[in-house]
Amino acid sequence: MTLNIAIIGVGLIGGSIGLALRGAPMVKGITGIDVNPQALNSAVKMGAIDRGAPLKEGVRDADVVFICSPLETVPGIVRAIRNHLKPGCIVTDVGSTKQKVMEAFAAELPPGVHGIGGHPMAGSEKGGVAGADRYLFENAVYVLTPPGSPGQEPVETLAALVGQMGAQVIIMDPSRHDDLVAIISHLPHLVAVALVNQAAGEPEALMLAAGGFRDTTRIASSPPEMWEEILFSNREAVIHRLEGLITGLNDFRRYLADRKREEVRSRLEQAREIRESIPRRKTGLFPVTCELIAIVPDEPGVIGSIGATLGEKGINIVDIEILRVREGDGGTIRLGVPSIADAETAVELLRETGVKAWLR
Amino acid sequence: MTLNIAIIGVGLIGGSIGLALRGAPMVKGITGIDVNPQALNSAVKMGAIDRGAPLKEGVRDADVVFICSPLETVPGIVRAIRNHLKPGCIVTDVGSTKQKVMEAFAAELPPGVHGIGGHPMAGSEKGGVAGADRYLFENAVYVLTPPGSPGQEPVETLAALVGQMGAQVIIMDPSRHDDLVAIISHLPHLVAVALVNQAAGEPEALMLAAGGFRDTTRIASSPPEMWEEILFSNREAVIHRLEGLITGLNDFRRYLADRKREEVRSRLEQAREIRESIPRRKTGLFPVTCELIAIVPDEPGVIGSIGATLGEKGINIVDIEILRVREGDGGTIRLGVPSIADAETAVELLRETGVKAWLR
Repeated sequence: MTLNIAIIGVGLIGGSIGLALRGAPMVKGITGIDVNPQALNSAVKMGAIDRGAPLKEGVRDADVVFICSPLETVPGIVRAIRNHLKPGCIVTDVGSTKQKVMEAFAAELPPGVHGIGGHPMAGSEKGGVAGADRYLFENAVYVLTPPGSPGQEPVETLAALVGQMGAQVIIMDPSRHDDLVAIISHLPHLVAVALVNQAAGEPEALMLAAGGFRDTTRIASSPPEMWEEILFSNREAVIHRLEGLITGLNDFRRYLADRKREEVRSRLEQAREIRESIPRRKTGLFPVTCELIAIVPDEPGVIGSIGATLGEKGINIVDIEILRVREGDGGTIRLGVPSIADAETAVELLRETGVKAWLR
Repeated sequence: MTLNIAIIGVGLIGGSIGLALRGAPMVKGITGIDVNPQALNSAVKMGAIDRGAPLKEGVRDADVVFICSPLETVPGIVRAIRNHLKPGCIVTDVGSTKQKVMEAFAAELPPGVHGIGGHPMAGSEKGGVAGADRYLFENAVYVLTPPGSPGQEPVETLAALVGQMGAQVIIMDPSRHDDLVAIISHLPHLVAVALVNQAAGEPEALMLAAGGFRDTTRIASSPPEMWEEILFSNREAVIHRLEGLITGLNDFRRYLADRKREEVRSRLEQAREIRESIPRRKTGLFPVTCELIAIVPDEPGVIGSIGATLGEKGINIVDIEILRVREGDGGTIRLGVPSIADAETAVELLRETGVKAWLR
């Protein structure tokens, strides 16, 4: 059996889902729905959807409906489509928090229609359908949150469909999902904001700000409106985890005040251990990457010539980062390659061309 | 007048200072001092120092002594050398906090010897003298903290010398320095540690952890021993700023609990504004960088061919970052180039070679 797909909201995520599902074995056709007719036109042109349609007509034949509009619009859309869905239809979304959406599904969807929350852990620097990318979900984690007593079959169908986007499906309870994203996403955001606000009125601090501070606070540059929505949609979990964090920071304050070095040290050590256990690639699908450091001259094309030197010998650069640049002089670059053998060969090849290089 | 330099502790920082000062107009000769004779041999071989010497003999003729050993060893070293310094000598260090060092200078150095704190805001991924890099301080901020009533001349001499390493010298009060690094370095560290420790016992959280969490917590992987030293050497400032941060987080908790959306929003907006005002390059010495995004196939040498394509037209890639990789398929790359004209040309050139590219 192949499926009719409807995508409501053909922007970055909706467009990428369309591109990723076009031609997938499980998919019969893709209908796009959007308040903006231009987005529909673009989506048809770029092959993200087969056709555009108005809301009610667009969902009528759908076996799976992806709601890809902003979090706060989901309940209203569910209400608007509920009487136009066919029996057995699966309705899912892509929002950053899941309990509120699951409540809307439970309250609004008629019996025989299956509401299953979804959260692809992927984004892009470019918004709108123009940023849609058929590989956006490739190897990304995609969480599905079925309701308390899911029919097994719809969950399996949706998981298989999402798998055909190239994503790694993880199924969990909605409240568990919301607690975990409070830890890994919402709390870091609040902390970055609070940290940056500590520097209010201290322009000199920003002048000194080295890489660490920029890294830690990058997410504080994200759109405030979007984050207000996310934080309030996950209020309870964020408050709970925030209290845990405040307790942890208060402990630090007390240990410093009481000069309890052992306690401070053990918390620093615990954090290092936990952090080192974060998978380097989210997925484990990538080959282990070895790293090398190279000090290169600052000349147009130097990155090209390094790439060419390694490429000629079949060594693929799978990761690259410029660690430091000295204008007119040179820079330090970190290169990731697929194996230790590649890394060793790369170091030799680079040294032969006069580049200072070593294994990291 | 040219200066005799002594460097105590010829590791990453001491070795890099030696390399950066070798042949500088103000420098007559460089003596290295280290408990590890092998480090001295390596330093001589790589040209970081002219000769190695024992501690007391090594500082006897020095006009400027750089103490580049771990923070906690500085007072002991000052005591050990105090009776062997010549009148007018400048003693400086490279530690991450400055008040404790300034106290040691004030308590131990004889009249006529000038103790001036120093803190180069630069580091490297590779420790020890083998990681020494003559460009480590190029364009980096280097803070000098003279005592309350400095002789003007020694500060000017040291500032000029540090300037010859290529660094941008900033002179400030030691307590002001310590307060600022508490904000931009020590607090982010504590927060990263506390955040990561929130994920203790939640392996699933780490599996979901996307880029944001990795960025925010990167510094939690640093050596616990070193950070214990740094935090305790700056105890008062860290406690003070930590209290400010805890207050900020408590405010957030209360605003969420009381559903005060306006308050949450205004703090998110404030943080975005402040963060956007962080200089993109620490120094302002770099030309403004424009960015473009390219979606490239995953083939050995693809980074090389992009570099070559742009290099042929004289476009220099001054920054590069791999945003996403799809094994066997392709990746999304961010490129930084010196000007908007370069960026536009680069987009055209890349499109001509079939690469999807756009200005960021």
